[in-house]
Amino acid sequence: MQNQPIGIFDSGLGGLTAVNEIRRLMPDEDFIYFGDTARIPYGTRSLEVIKKYSLQDCRFLVSKGVKAILVACGTVSSNALELLKSSFSLPIIGVVEGAAKRAAEVAEQSNGIIAVLGTDATIKSGAFTKQIEKINPSLRVVSKSCPMFVPLVENGHTATDDIAANAIANEYLSEIAPQEPSAVILGCTHYPLLSDIIGSILPYSTLISSGSEAASTLKERLYATGMLNGTGNGHTVYYTSDDTMLFAKNARRFLGSDISDSIYITDIENY
Amino acid sequence: MQNQPIGIFDSGLGGLTAVNEIRRLMPDEDFIYFGDTARIPYGTRSLEVIKKYSLQDCRFLVSKGVKAILVACGTVSSNALELLKSSFSLPIIGVVEGAAKRAAEVAEQSNGIIAVLGTDATIKSGAFTKQIEKINPSLRVVSKSCPMFVPLVENGHTATDDIAANAIANEYLSEIAPQEPSAVILGCTHYPLLSDIIGSILPYSTLISSGSEAASTLKERLYATGMLNGTGNGHTVYYTSDDTMLFAKNARRFLGSDISDSIYITDIENY
Repeated sequence: MQNQPIGIFDSGLGGLTAVNEIRRLMPDEDFIYFGDTARIPYGTRSLEVIKKYSLQDCRFLVSKGVKAILVACGTVSSNALELLKSSFSLPIIGVVEGAAKRAAEVAEQSNGIIAVLGTDATIKSGAFTKQIEKINPSLRVVSKSCPMFVPLVENGHTATDDIAANAIANEYLSEIAPQEPSAVILGCTHYPLLSDIIGSILPYSTLISSGSEAASTLKERLYATGMLNGTGNGHTVYYTSDDTMLFAKNARRFLGSDISDSIYITDIENY
Repeated sequence: MQNQPIGIFDSGLGGLTAVNEIRRLMPDEDFIYFGDTARIPYGTRSLEVIKKYSLQDCRFLVSKGVKAILVACGTVSSNALELLKSSFSLPIIGVVEGAAKRAAEVAEQSNGIIAVLGTDATIKSGAFTKQIEKINPSLRVVSKSCPMFVPLVENGHTATDDIAANAIANEYLSEIAPQEPSAVILGCTHYPLLSDIIGSILPYSTLISSGSEAASTLKERLYATGMLNGTGNGHTVYYTSDDTMLFAKNARRFLGSDISDSIYITDIENY
């Protein structure tokens, strides 16, 4: 059981921002990553479709013999985590819990204001807000749906001087900025690639990567249940539902390294 | 046969720009529109995935008894039209042929330069360029992939003073504008909603909507084969693979009218 790999999935490439952190935290674990690039994005789709796609994603990873699953997708974590937990018997960790905890810690030391940025479906679910309220109901949460952030990142509009990315970020953050939130949750794993632009508009805020926090939460959970692997190879295998070479090419921007010898295709609709 | 409806499909809402034109041209025909909003966009996906999705889309429309299909999606028209034509026995019209013909007519009267704008997959296919070369090899074609145009339109960034849309359009058209093409093919059915912005950057060019031209081509084809319906009700039924109410809400921007009483959901992966 300890020696089985950990499964990670996302609608596409965004979850790779969590892969970097999870491999740093757990260098002896093996990982299987699935990115659903044939059906990305998830964040603009309906609840029913998000549930269906994420059940298929988990069934695929379970078929690969994973011991636990990290849902590195803010949209799925916010809308389908309970469904996934009740459908499978292995530990499943989303990105909401860890980020909410860390944001609360930061905000409690400061002005008590937290901003949540996410996809349409994530913000509509209110998942981050509910989780923060559970931790400390006196904290104030402002949230904003940022639907253009994923296409901007996917198309490489991440440079600090990118006019379109700055215009859209300024538009999305115009009501949040004057409130000077002490913590800002990047509730979608694509958003850390826009950290410099978001940080320049919210210079007083601590930006919290939901993917990185989830990696820490998963490590704690595995340690507590004796499931941590101390003898693995730190090997990661990647699967995608669309073209493997395109995935490998785009993954470079997230990982900084070449994965073209460890990427495979899967027909996710069959799971 | 004459009385059967005409099928139209697109990856999502973009094809609705062709619906307006096709209903104006053929007021007595009935139509069945399918928008694959559970899997939009198509233009960033691989050839294999585009083929698979478009075969499913056609199988669905054929199951509804259509007499002909208008492929109101530039990506599918450029990458899978021959496959679809050889897989089904009814007339199937894409958006390449009509737009290429019209652009050639315009360019031949002027400087002979044509610009083609489209998705990644459309531009990579070279379909418009090949079709124009077939018509008149002395015309010069410049083409540009515009991957951010679909998300901009889908998220309502279409106002003439939208900073992000203008910045991205200026970037995409920076090499094309100095060449002053006489005709510009909007090779994706989303793009007509950005006509004002594109037109302001290319003031000397005639913008050609590939969806509208395809509607004319289809009418000619039906007339020539005696398949035009002169006694129908002009009724259109809509199907989507995701939430129907969301589709109806977003369709307003394209159609200017409410379709919430004639929209249904279908599980496209089963076709």
